Formats: sequence, structure tokens, C-alpha cells
Amino acid sequence: MGDDVYSVPGIRLGVAAAGIKYPGRNDLLVIALPEGGSCAGLFTRNAFCAAPVHVAKQHMGAEAPRYLLINSGNANAGTGDQGLLDAQRSCAALAEVTGCKAAQVLPFSTGVIGENLPVDCIEQALPKAIESLDEASWEAAAVAIMTTDTRPKVVSRQFDLAGESITVTGIAKGSGMIRPDMATMLAYLATDLAVDVSLLQQCLRDAVQPSFNSITVDGDTSTNDACMLLASGKAGVELVSDADSEAYRKLSQTVTDVCMSLAREIVRDGEGATKLVEVLVESATSEHEARSVAYTIAHSPLVKTALFASDPNWGRILAAVGRAGLEDLAIDQVEIWLDDVCIVRNGGRAADYTEAAGQQVMDRAEFTIGVKLGRGQAAARILTCDLSYDYVKINAEYRT
Amino acid sequence: MGDDVYSVPGIRLGVAAAGIKYPGRNDLLVIALPEGGSCAGLFTRNAFCAAPVHVAKQHMGAEAPRYLLINSGNANAGTGDQGLLDAQRSCAALAEVTGCKAAQVLPFSTGVIGENLPVDCIEQALPKAIESLDEASWEAAAVAIMTTDTRPKVVSRQFDLAGESITVTGIAKGSGMIRPDMATMLAYLATDLAVDVSLLQQCLRDAVQPSFNSITVDGDTSTNDACMLLASGKAGVELVSDADSEAYRKLSQTVTDVCMSLAREIVRDGEGATKLVEVLVESATSEHEARSVAYTIAHSPLVKTALFASDPNWGRILAAVGRAGLEDLAIDQVEIWLDDVCIVRNGGRAADYTEAAGQQVMDRAEFTIGVKLGRGQAAARILTCDLSYDYVKINAEYRT
Repeated sequence: MGDDVYSVPGIRLGVAAAGIKYPGRNDLLVIALPEGGSCAGLFTRNAFCAAPVHVAKQHMGAEAPRYLLINSGNANAGTGDQGLLDAQRSCAALAEVTGCKAAQVLPFSTGVIGENLPVDCIEQALPKAIESLDEASWEAAAVAIMTTDTRPKVVSRQFDLAGESITVTGIAKGSGMIRPDMATMLAYLATDLAVDVSLLQQCLRDAVQPSFNSITVDGDTSTNDACMLLASGKAGVELVSDADSEAYRKLSQTVTDVCMSLAREIVRDGEGATKLVEVLVESATSEHEARSVAYTIAHSPLVKTALFASDPNWGRILAAVGRAGLEDLAIDQVEIWLDDVCIVRNGGRAADYTEAAGQQVMDRAEFTIGVKLGRGQAAARILTCDLSYDYVKINAEYRT
Repeated sequence: MGDDVYSVPGIRLGVAAAGIKYPGRNDLLVIALPEGGSCAGLFTRNAFCAAPVHVAKQHMGAEAPRYLLINSGNANAGTGDQGLLDAQRSCAALAEVTGCKAAQVLPFSTGVIGENLPVDCIEQALPKAIESLDEASWEAAAVAIMTTDTRPKVVSRQFDLAGESITVTGIAKGSGMIRPDMATMLAYLATDLAVDVSLLQQCLRDAVQPSFNSITVDGDTSTNDACMLLASGKAGVELVSDADSEAYRKLSQTVTDVCMSLAREIVRDGEGATKLVEVLVESATSEHEARSVAYTIAHSPLVKTALFASDPNWGRILAAVGRAGLEDLAIDQVEIWLDDVCIVRNGGRAADYTEAAGQQVMDRAEFTIGVKLGRGQAAARILTCDLSYDYVKINAEYRT
């Protein structure tokens, strides 16, 4: 990314190597929130949601969170009652080291599904993670939560409020099993503004819809998805509790901006991805319809392999639009574009389309597939990537 | 297949090399139906259905068909008005050679989308195809309609009726862009029984639902899917016009059997496929629900790459069930099986599951993923295959 990463006053991060799956690298992250801070969260809608998701939701309802405890390498999902006990035991261990209540700790896990969490490893590594808590550790934190990601994802922005510089910094991990249906696999954002918790939740929800909820790598929604937004309240300005205030508007814009950038990074780092493609569907009768057409294109293995081959095989895009299940689609109203090149018009290849023009767009590392349905005012935008040999390689070899 | 292929008295097939895309191989097929024969058909539901699909439907409504004209190498889809003219011109050319009406010819095309059909090539090759018309050419016909298929697909069965042997023989092509939503890419079946056309249509509809409409390779529904059932009436028995007759019941069973076998062949020959996997979802509240869970599993790239790797990574199956969108799914009621090995029970790994037992099933070339939802009486069965390097290779290189 190359951009500056700003610390968030009041938010400290500590990492350690617990040896959960990956030898010799940090796989444990603790994020500490000061007393009086607030915390919002969105979680996966997968019915088989993981044990830590259950426990985190339950703890959030009971107490004001002080610590987030995150491990990579093991998802603690599909682990039944033992999984719940393991997640609770991890929280209790952190509570004991720090002197808070177990319910003030929120647990998160990412990695292989269906294996029991090695809580002993986590307990042993916790003191080191606590010792290393520091406001400047965002990049180390982003590395510690990686699984098949090839690079850490950190985005940081600042905005001015009443003469003061306010920070929003976030990290995310995710590369495969990406079709968030509430939040990406794992993302943690923080600001130093003081924000009322219900407003913080609204801010997160608004930011997640056009960002993490509008990307797909492979259409698979993880059991462990979670996105958290923390507010430390350490900036020297008043508590934000009014949705119409300038402070809230600026915060909301900046949080959305950080989420959009992190979401983009996740797709760019999609498993085996060589291209970043935006699918923009316009003039639909509803946003739901536009999203459904966009996802049909973005999930088509035939479209995705054509993207990998840089092959302007637009017939596959047309076939995907055609099978998206739209009632009474007037195909002579449909237009399909690759960036500024119109490829389909009046139900067939556009008269002025040339293979050379299509090839030129397909050769780009980033471009937009545009679809105009010609039947309404709604639109949707989905980010996706191609399907390459490496996607198969990564996912055929991940466990073995 | 190794089984006998029986000719269908009255049904003649002729092939020729028209040089449409593949040099030096037959790519044109003519099937001739005798006067007085009947013909049923089911077509793709893709909104961008190809020009020949439009023309075939229109001709079927106007006249009793005498000839089916099929080419491989070019789908004549996404070709707008020119595509319609080209399909009509092909029919007219065959009508001129044979002396029938153009509306008695049904055109079918399969291959690349979005390129104009080279009608001149077809016109030149037609006389040779007509000359070679023969009742014994089913296997040559199956070869002529192949595109990315690695082998021809022919299934033939006989049953006894009033002391006479009645034949049902069928061919199909299809390997990718396979998630039929009415019929597979292309399939042609014929019987020598005389069958009332509305009953023939019912027979085909009943046969297609559990066969071609219950398979998926990559979730993409083609623009050109069609499945035709011909009845020559040349067997020495009476016209079948009663759905409760023994003749109809036997015919229906046999046609369904042929369709099931052809559907199985298509998935076995799925692009890059190394495994044939049945997904069986039971105790669902409705067949729709069962099919939706089965398709979510069968389309998951993570499940499909795990199948390719023979990796019993059942967490991916569990995650797919969890994201299938079922309301109020009680996960502790769900069971997941690999053949006779229970892997998930009570919301987590089954107590007696061992990795070795899971591995033993995964190493098989054919097996069943069983899911019991524990909430109703309905079931569904979907056939699918794995996602391999070769799927990506075939589809990244198909046009170039």
C-alpha cells in the first residue's frame, strides 16, 4: 500500500507466536480497548457459525469489551460444544492475565474448519502478546491474522474535526472463502473519536454494505466472518451521539472509505487472483436484481477463467446475464461493456465492436464489466477476481 | 460404454465435415424422422437463448418435423438478427436438398458464442450428410456433436412390448457450461414406438427432471441447451396415446433410464473432472430446499477443489450447508456423510469420525456426499464433479 499507517490513540495491539498451525510466525493478536471505549461488530450469517462467533456475540451483549483475542491457523468452527468451551477458556485465560472479566474479551478465530482449538498454545503465548501491546503495531497485527493471504492489509485515513486530526485505521484478512454476507472474514477498524455504541454500529453497517458485502472471490461465505469497529474516545473532542452531526458524517465517510480500500485489497489478494474486476450492473428494476445479475457474472467459472486468460469471450458474460433468472428480460435492451468498449447491443455483438478493442481492455490488470439492463433505475457494484490455476492449487493443497 | 447400441427403425442419421471450427472431423449431423413420426423437445431457459433455439421452437409449432440439423463448433448465440437469418437459411438449404418444407427442419448449434454461423460451409457439406443417412450411425452422430467432450455419449436400451422388442437410443454432448435448466446442452433420443406428440412431450419432461436437470459441472446454463425425443412409429405396435397404458409406462421408464445414463456420462466427462460425486440431501422441508442445499455444495469451488485433492476437508461441506440460506436451520440436527461414514453430527465432527475413514471414501472415483437436514421429508439428488487444474486450462484456452 505504501501509505502511512496512523496509530489510533488508546488502541493497543500485541502479537505473539502460539504455534497453532504455522511454525515460526505470529499467529495470535490481542487488541486492547481503553475503559470507556465503544465497540461495534457485524458477524457472518452462515448457519454453521463458528464457536468464537457465538461467544463474541454473547459477550458483547453482556459487557463493554476491553480485549479482542484473535488467532489464525484454526477456525474453531464445526467443533460443537468443545469449541464453545475452548473459546470461553481462551477468553478466561486473557482475563486472568489482564485482570478484566472473561465476558469483556471477544474471541475470533480463522483457519482450518473442524479441528479443535489448541487452547494450551494460546495460553502459553498470551503473556508475550500482552507484554507487546503497543499503539504502533497495526502492521504486525495485520500479518498475524493472515492465512492464505499473500500480503497484510492495512488502511489508514485521517480527517479534521474542530481543528483536531481524527484517525481511522483498519486491518483485514481474507483471500478465499470470500463472499461476505455481513462482513469479510476478519476486519478490525478503530478510531480515536468517542462514539455512542449504537451510532458506531450504524456507522459500521453503512460502511460494510458497499465494501465487504460487495466483493466475492469464490462465492463461499465463511463460518467465521467478523468485522469490528472500535472507538477509543481518546481524541480531545466530545462524544459523538448525533447521526446528523458533522463529526458523525465525517467519521462515517472515512470508515466507509477504509472499508472500501480493505475490501479492494482482499479481492486483489484473492486466492490465485491475477486481475481485479468490477462488475457494475445498471438500469435494473431493483438493487436486489442488480446485485443478483452482478453476482451471477462474478461467480461464473466460465467468465472467471476467461478473465484469467485475458480472453474477451463476451459470450460467457452474455450467457451469465441470460441465466440470472430475470423475468421478462428484453434482451434487445441489454448492453454489455468492457470499460468504455460496448460489446453487446440489440441482443448481439455491437456493430462497431472489434476483437482488438475487447482484447485491449482484457489485457488490463483492472477493469470494469458494465451491464445495462435497460429496465429501471437501480444499480449495484461487485468487486471480483479471476479463477486461475493457482486458485485450484491453493485450495487443493491447503490442508495437505 | 461398451454396451450394444441398437438402431431405431425409421430414424436415420448422417454426418459430414463442414469445417466450421474443427478441421478434419465431422461437425455436421442430420437426423431424419419418417413421415408420421412425432417429436418432443425441451429447450434452455437462458434469456439469451440462441438463434437456432428460437427457430426450432417456431418450426415445431408450425409443422411436423422431418429433419434435425445440428452443427458443432459454433453456437450461433448472441448473434442478433443475423443469427436468426443464418439459422433459417440453414433450414432452407436442407429443405431444398431433401424436398421438405424449411419449417420441417429444426436447427441446433453448439460451440463458441458470439460468432456468426458460417452457413456456406454447412450448405456445402449438407449433400454429403444426406447421402450418408443410415439407421446404424448413432455412434458417428455422437462424435459429430462433441465440442470439449473427451468422448462420445451414447446409451441404448430395449424393452419388450406385446412380444416385440422396442428400442430407445440416445446421444448427448456436454462437458462445460453445464447446469441444465430444462435439458442438457444437446441430447437426442429416439424410439421406434408410435407415440402421440403430447404424451411424448410428457415422457421427455418426466425423464429430464431427475437426469439432465439434476446435474451440474460448473453452474453455467448454456444458451443452446436442447433435448429432443423422436418417435418413428416403425415398431409393429399401435400408437401410444394413453398415459396409463403398459406401453407408455415402459417407454417412460426406459427413456428416463437412458436420460439418467447420458446425464451421468456428461458429468463423468465434465471439463477436467476426475471424480463423479452424488450430492444427496434428505429430510428437507421441500424438494426446492433440498435442491438448493445440494446445488450450494455442488457449486462451491472450495468443496470442488477439495474433491479434486481427495481431501476430506468436510469443514467446507459444512460451511456450504451453512450458507445455503435455510431459515432457522437447527445445526445440531444436521448430519453429513461421505458414503457410509458420518462426518458431522450434533453441530460438529461426529465422535466416531476418523480422518482415515474419510480419506478412504475421498479416494474413490465415485462417492456420495449425504446431508440429512433433520427437518422434513423431502429429498433431492444432484450429480457433480470436482474442479481441477484442467477445468481452468480447458476454459482459459478454449478460444485462443
